[in-house]
Amino acid sequence: MAFGWIDERAEARRRAGLVRTLRPRPAASPLLDLASNDYLGLARHPEVTEGAARAARVWGGGATGSRLVTGTTELHTELERELADFCGAEAALVFSSGYAANLAAVTALAPHGSLIVSDAGNHASLIDGCRLARGTTQVVAHADPEAVRKALHAHDGPAVVVCDTVFSVDGDAAPLARLAQVGREHGAGLVVDDAHGLGVLGDGGRGAPHAQGLAGADDVVVTVTLSKSLGSQGGAVLGPARVIDHLVNAARTFIFDTGLAPAAAGAALAALRLLRREPERAARARAVAGELHARLTAEGLAAVRPDAAVVSVRAPSPEGAVRWAAECRAVGLAVGCFRPPSVPDGVSRLRLTARADLTGDQLEHAVRVIRRTRP
Amino acid sequence: MAFGWIDERAEARRRAGLVRTLRPRPAASPLLDLASNDYLGLARHPEVTEGAARAARVWGGGATGSRLVTGTTELHTELERELADFCGAEAALVFSSGYAANLAAVTALAPHGSLIVSDAGNHASLIDGCRLARGTTQVVAHADPEAVRKALHAHDGPAVVVCDTVFSVDGDAAPLARLAQVGREHGAGLVVDDAHGLGVLGDGGRGAPHAQGLAGADDVVVTVTLSKSLGSQGGAVLGPARVIDHLVNAARTFIFDTGLAPAAAGAALAALRLLRREPERAARARAVAGELHARLTAEGLAAVRPDAAVVSVRAPSPEGAVRWAAECRAVGLAVGCFRPPSVPDGVSRLRLTARADLTGDQLEHAVRVIRRTRP
Ligand SMILES: Cc1ncc(COP(=O)(O)O)c(C=O)c1O
Ligand SMILES: Cc1ncc(COP(=O)(O)O)c(C=O)c1O
Repeated sequence: MAFGWIDERAEARRRAGLVRTLRPRPAASPLLDLASNDYLGLARHPEVTEGAARAARVWGGGATGSRLVTGTTELHTELERELADFCGAEAALVFSSGYAANLAAVTALAPHGSLIVSDAGNHASLIDGCRLARGTTQVVAHADPEAVRKALHAHDGPAVVVCDTVFSVDGDAAPLARLAQVGREHGAGLVVDDAHGLGVLGDGGRGAPHAQGLAGADDVVVTVTLSKSLGSQGGAVLGPARVIDHLVNAARTFIFDTGLAPAAAGAALAALRLLRREPERAARARAVAGELHARLTAEGLAAVRPDAAVVSVRAPSPEGAVRWAAECRAVGLAVGCFRPPSVPDGVSRLRLTARADLTGDQLEHAVRVIRRTRP
Repeated sequence: MAFGWIDERAEARRRAGLVRTLRPRPAASPLLDLASNDYLGLARHPEVTEGAARAARVWGGGATGSRLVTGTTELHTELERELADFCGAEAALVFSSGYAANLAAVTALAPHGSLIVSDAGNHASLIDGCRLARGTTQVVAHADPEAVRKALHAHDGPAVVVCDTVFSVDGDAAPLARLAQVGREHGAGLVVDDAHGLGVLGDGGRGAPHAQGLAGADDVVVTVTLSKSLGSQGGAVLGPARVIDHLVNAARTFIFDTGLAPAAAGAALAALRLLRREPERAARARAVAGELHARLTAEGLAAVRPDAAVVSVRAPSPEGAVRWAAECRAVGLAVGCFRPPSVPDGVSRLRLTARADLTGDQLEHAVRVIRRTRP
């Protein structure tokens, strides 16, 4: 029978305790949210939701076509200009998702004969970009500039070093400045995914590349998502204008995808302007993460010191992690739970996000719940 | 220098007359639109834009996380239920784009050791799905069930036949019923992309698989996009509940992508309800396409008979196609222009879309302009 093999896979997942199910949430959730990527608490901000509503009214429910046909509105261009300006890049190009932006950047910048040096902890979208690219991928040890140097040294021809700026699972930062230096020694470009850095790291949330003095460099390309700190949906690639022009002409997820919906562009633009006006939100997210880590550690929990707004806590097993997250949820606390195959090292953990708008009381309550429900 | 090779590519594109540039449009465009994929004219419908605005207000600017963490709202579930019900499928799963839905369906349904039989005219997102999948891909001649039969016959093990229901470039329909029959003879599944069929083909716009008696079949998986007839953004996979459960657990563009923005889900849901209430919109789009084709043909233009709402007209060369489209635009008519590498056969053409809300006068005017500007 067609698709017969699916049932065996389902059975294997059941036996391994790895079945995933969807839990639809109501509009007014009673849960305290330490699970979303809404780092600045902007997804529900009235300026952001009004930005979405206004854009839908003015521009329509969808972009109606590829960015190359009817799908580029003046709103898209405005968002691109302000994103590039904020992050200190020469130009920007907006995509329907951060996933699509990563597929575009990696595939379009790694032609046949080139080498992609990819960090072992990279996000799935960068990994899929490597798989789709015509270049050859070499996966190197996590956050290891020496391993990158070795890979580049052994290759002759165009090369790119690809990595997350903040890794999504443990929330640790990549050694960006050293990676850039190693890349430069070998004439390689750097493609970094600042999904978890934008809005949190750097001056007023300008992101990890900006914080490391790499903004505007002619050999650095930055991808971001509009779906985390900016509380919307979509992604963007930021870089030299010649690289952006190249993407317009060569990136399949740009050319063959409908443009980002106006409402998402409008929400992201409103969030970006809010962040410019209230730059302290970024520092506040970092401070909340630091405090969350300190409190968890004081309770004897195995939390990883956060470099941005993600705090990960190790769990004894996949089942243990699932039970832990379920018990938190049962008493009103939403936490993320990462298990194989979503973790590169096979270690299950709770993934907590430190929203800039969490209060001290909420933090204290969250830590108490996590300690009490510990497996 | 890093990315130095990009300049050579840019120069080669310039020489070949294949440079693509973005043309941002204002909110109130003076152009008559025969270029977008807004087949039912719903992107600007007040019910659709209000659906987007309301959803943003109630649910926020973004989904805030992966569908598996915080990104599934009751709105997503409602949209999935109504989409499945409308198209006659057992279940549905919504993605951030049609592109992501196609990557998910193909990769998750073509495991290691399986065969993917892929039509030579398939959309880029299906092709990228084939490239990412663990299975082996065999590309077969366009719309050729006998070629599919041969490919399946030579393979032992799980197999899927993958194709567009309506091909995006020429607007011709796939021989779905025969493909399904060939697939069944070999125990292969059928994965069809109904991006250009939903809202246009079938009873009240229920799509090509519904029209061909394939809706709800246990060996058929349908992907759709919310960005064309439904005037929004996003995509969905429709199929047996066991297949949908499998995607929730295995599809990387589902697991590692932020959920569709509430505004996009709200707009699509509003459009779907409108289409249910006004089923004649689908037939009207088909009638407009037929009329457009008849008028173009009567003028001696090489238009392809449309099976849905896309009417393609051959141009003598890439430069000729670009000039033709530019001259149409100069006198107020927006038409699509497809050139290499966006066309599988290397033939450049104008691509016209027959919106259900085009009037007879608008059609007449459009055809006059196209004839007059003909290279
Ligand atoms: C590091 C990283 N990159 C890219 C993405 C994809 O972005 P989006 O969800 O906006 O498609 C995510 C998360 O979803 C991520 O964590
Ligand atoms: C046949 C086909 N499939 C899939 C897609 C991708 O859908 P979306 O643009 O909603 O991502 C498109 C067009 O964009 C298409 O024409």
